Amino acid sequence: MPSDFAEWESGPQAARGLFAAYPSGVVTFGAVIDGVDVLMLASSFTVGVSYDPPMCSVAIQKSSTTWPTLARAPRLGVSALSSAHAGSVRRLGSRDPRNRTADVSLARSPGGAVFLEDATAWFECVPVRELDAGDHTVVLLEVVGGSNAGTTPPLILHRGVVHATAEIVLD
Amino acid sequence: MPSDFAEWESGPQAARGLFAAYPSGVVTFGAVIDGVDVLMLASSFTVGVSYDPPMCSVAIQKSSTTWPTLARAPRLGVSALSSAHAGSVRRLGSRDPRNRTADVSLARSPGGAVFLEDATAWFECVPVRELDAGDHTVVLLEVVGGSNAGTTPPLILHRGVVHATAEIVLD
Repeated sequence: MPSDFAEWESGPQAARGLFAAYPSGVVTFGAVIDGVDVLMLASSFTVGVSYDPPMCSVAIQKSSTTWPTLARAPRLGVSALSSAHAGSVRRLGSRDPRNRTADVSLARSPGGAVFLEDATAWFECVPVRELDAGDHTVVLLEVVGGSNAGTTPPLILHRGVVHATAEIVLD
Repeated sequence: MPSDFAEWESGPQAARGLFAAYPSGVVTFGAVIDGVDVLMLASSFTVGVSYDPPMCSVAIQKSSTTWPTLARAPRLGVSALSSAHAGSVRRLGSRDPRNRTADVSLARSPGGAVFLEDATAWFECVPVRELDAGDHTVVLLEVVGGSNAGTTPPLILHRGVVHATAEIVLD
């Protein structure tokens, strides 16, 4: 492969396997809503969507029940999961929102965004625009603040399994 | 951090450092244009934007001179760079398009999409919709075919350096 195009897969059935083969970071979106810390896990967060102004994006399932709650917040916290969160990913992705925060330490910004401690990087975002995309909605987010001072390396999701990263030293 | 919000960075100047702290895969977009293999490197490719129909996205600088050429192709090849490409990334990102293909082996689909051999995964895509995003354009792509049969692990870009991945074994 890929020369063997006879084995090319296509359609919604094949999409899950195809997409899982592409590596991605993992984030939580978080905000204080009615006094409660609300977190949601996402693997489609993308940085560098624009540099001026700084913008990111995320694709949200139209069936998501947490996103409509989070979208009421003026500021959303985005935390890039690090290797410190390897054992917490499953719980962060719990169906019941009340179970998601059990394993992690949280921080709250003055604007009500909720972040994970021990993350690799943090972004404070404001949703600005949406684009219809099949069974998802692409949400554009303006980055109003953040920090890249995390010292723990990022977590990577690949073929459904969490991975750590190691620098490749080139000759 | 992130509790120390006094050190929060913001604005276009800070964006580059913030965005580099988020890990991402790296892809080439490729197509045969007027008989020539045209490749373009991108780190903002995102899978799972929709599952039904299968859609991906990429954010393209409005100043890109290669994208308007590629966008003339009916089918675009997207190849997820693997650790086999660690030494080729710099050349694949050359300003002069003629230098980009020097280090890599290419494959061409019947539809004229151009792929890298030894990639982690391959996606054959058709651009379907665009969204204005500051100094970039977000392009939605429908995935019409692909393969996740790559056996070489993916390449990760983090803080401007290429990384390999290693599975984290949980207790």
